[in-house]
Amino acid sequence: MTETRNRILTATAELFRLQGYNGTSLKQVTTAAAAPTGSLYHFFPGGKEQLAETVIVTSGEAYRELFEMVYASATSPAAAITDFFNGAAEVLEESDYLDPCPIGSVALEVASTNDRLRRATHDVFASWVDTAATRLEADGIPRAHAEELAVALVAAVEGGFMLSRAARSAEPMRTTGQLIRRLVEIALRTATAARAGLPD
Amino acid sequence: MTETRNRILTATAELFRLQGYNGTSLKQVTTAAAAPTGSLYHFFPGGKEQLAETVIVTSGEAYRELFEMVYASATSPAAAITDFFNGAAEVLEESDYLDPCPIGSVALEVASTNDRLRRATHDVFASWVDTAATRLEADGIPRAHAEELAVALVAAVEGGFMLSRAARSAEPMRTTGQLIRRLVEIALRTATAARAGLPD
Repeated sequence: MTETRNRILTATAELFRLQGYNGTSLKQVTTAAAAPTGSLYHFFPGGKEQLAETVIVTSGEAYRELFEMVYASATSPAAAITDFFNGAAEVLEESDYLDPCPIGSVALEVASTNDRLRRATHDVFASWVDTAATRLEADGIPRAHAEELAVALVAAVEGGFMLSRAARSAEPMRTTGQLIRRLVEIALRTATAARAGLPD
Repeated sequence: MTETRNRILTATAELFRLQGYNGTSLKQVTTAAAAPTGSLYHFFPGGKEQLAETVIVTSGEAYRELFEMVYASATSPAAAITDFFNGAAEVLEESDYLDPCPIGSVALEVASTNDRLRRATHDVFASWVDTAATRLEADGIPRAHAEELAVALVAAVEGGFMLSRAARSAEPMRTTGQLIRRLVEIALRTATAARAGLPD
């Protein structure tokens, strides 16, 4: 039964990546998941909204963990930033410019029309910002500035997906990543200088 | 008759801002525009797709002109960047976090499902990038870097709308704008130093 539930969640996430929340019908979900309609309402009695909320929470956590993993295996904090953006660029190229993450499109569709799903997308963005800020802070950037950088990083990733998907080119994602990396490098240099009591 | 056409375009843009492309029906458009269904097909024989394309092109040009206007009236190139992001932040606050521009949500919805509209959104983003790059270049930043900054700027604006709408707070937009401003300031300083033959 858990397997059916997982198939439903995977199929929904894939449909959202392709065509967003409003463009996806429950009929498409059950067909793609090879699941009877009854099972969908069994696992998600709240229907499409509850299903979408679960997909947002689950995908949000998966991408948060991916960021942690990329950061942990990078050679430096600055390299972690380019690794992350370049990884996203490669996924775009390999997937024919499908959104790797189902949250961006849904976030814009629901922002003004469904407060429960709006909150779910916000919670995901906030968890990403917190994760990135905590990493940058651990590398020496004061918390307040680490949070600013993390907000810009998440905004840049989401905007990078939008421009790259529209262009069918990963260049906007790579370019944006290089500039966010530059901001992180400057912040690290400033923090190091401040610790050494040197002028910036 | 042109007045009816304009009412249809305005109503469509407003519905897209609120609920995106897939969430908007032609019935909602004709109701909001107080226009008979026949008039919609008279002006837009290609139906919803042609209507959406016209809205994307028209809104794209309006926002391109707005950027030019903000840039021209700013006290400095760096101030122009914060003026633009802070202006967007204020519009979000005043509109209860409605997307001021109908293009972002539509761009993600159509990227993998409608190539004609995907191209239309790309052309708009490309025109914004070109406009910003041309302005930054005129202020002394070498073209290649001006284009990189312009790509990051447009990505940051779109990502900023996404985060701010999800949070129902304009802070992500303001924060992101400050960091893009910092990148522009650094680029201007580097360009000035290079022209003076000084080390960066």
